[in-house]
Amino acid sequence: MELQLEDVRDILRRTPPTLNLLLQDLPERWLMNNEGPKTWSPYDVVGHLIHGEETDWIPRAKIILEHGESRAFTPFNREAMFEKSKFKSIDELLNTFTELRAESLQQLDELNLTPEMLEKRGLHPELGPVTLSQLFAAWVVHDLGHIGQIVRVMSKQYGEAVGPWKAYLPVLTR
Amino acid sequence: MELQLEDVRDILRRTPPTLNLLLQDLPERWLMNNEGPKTWSPYDVVGHLIHGEETDWIPRAKIILEHGESRAFTPFNREAMFEKSKFKSIDELLNTFTELRAESLQQLDELNLTPEMLEKRGLHPELGPVTLSQLFAAWVVHDLGHIGQIVRVMSKQYGEAVGPWKAYLPVLTR
Repeated sequence: MELQLEDVRDILRRTPPTLNLLLQDLPERWLMNNEGPKTWSPYDVVGHLIHGEETDWIPRAKIILEHGESRAFTPFNREAMFEKSKFKSIDELLNTFTELRAESLQQLDELNLTPEMLEKRGLHPELGPVTLSQLFAAWVVHDLGHIGQIVRVMSKQYGEAVGPWKAYLPVLTR
Repeated sequence: MELQLEDVRDILRRTPPTLNLLLQDLPERWLMNNEGPKTWSPYDVVGHLIHGEETDWIPRAKIILEHGESRAFTPFNREAMFEKSKFKSIDELLNTFTELRAESLQQLDELNLTPEMLEKRGLHPELGPVTLSQLFAAWVVHDLGHIGQIVRVMSKQYGEAVGPWKAYLPVLTR
């Protein structure tokens, strides 16, 4: 499917309320457990999404529009949240993400993008040339992927509790 | 993690509003596309969840409580929705699922379950002996797995649109 900017907005705006619904008031045993060493808990994922709003999506869109391929993006620190989220409650993180996403969508509107601008190229430090359109598609998929990760990590907390049903629940072995 | 009935209720009640948030008013191109032959669209998944409320979870809990291992569960038709959902709008399906889930949770409360009752065994037609506790854990994981499926199927619609970012977005290749 080709990218449509109205779809990007429509899907991105749903992520904060979806995360609020899934995670607000959930016991710590569901929020803080992960899938094993070097994996992330639902709590970690929210921190990671916050860092994306602050340093990845809109900042990179602006670099593409202002500098094209002449300036590579600043590399994104995927694990910044392990320091940045420290001592913050899940409510605080969810509220921060909700605010930052609203600001991002506001800034997206203010870019007044045309179809031609969406084809403009920037330079990813590892992936090479990428278009603004590809950046926005990646933003949408990144959101959806992390919602999927959150529910997968949660489901694994019941990996033993389901007993023989494990054979019928593919999410437990992904 | 061991099953706690309050967690089961807490997570199961979140699924209908989560699906509403993800899917309501979404364009058909996001609702009706799947991952390829013999896979399900987000629309199909909602129909499947409806059929589960009607024929799987609470009905099986009652069979366990009433008949123990003396009567195997009726096999669950995983694909019943391809007939049952026909001609229904996504709004209709989402509303039906919301109502049925509320009824299921009401019935769950009315079972007045004790820890001893949760260890009661029933007979799965293929998996053999299973406990009520395992049934409820499977219900939770089944919900979470299908939320994960919905966002994965959606993300794949942008599998090409993300361009080189595909390498960094594992949800696209799961």
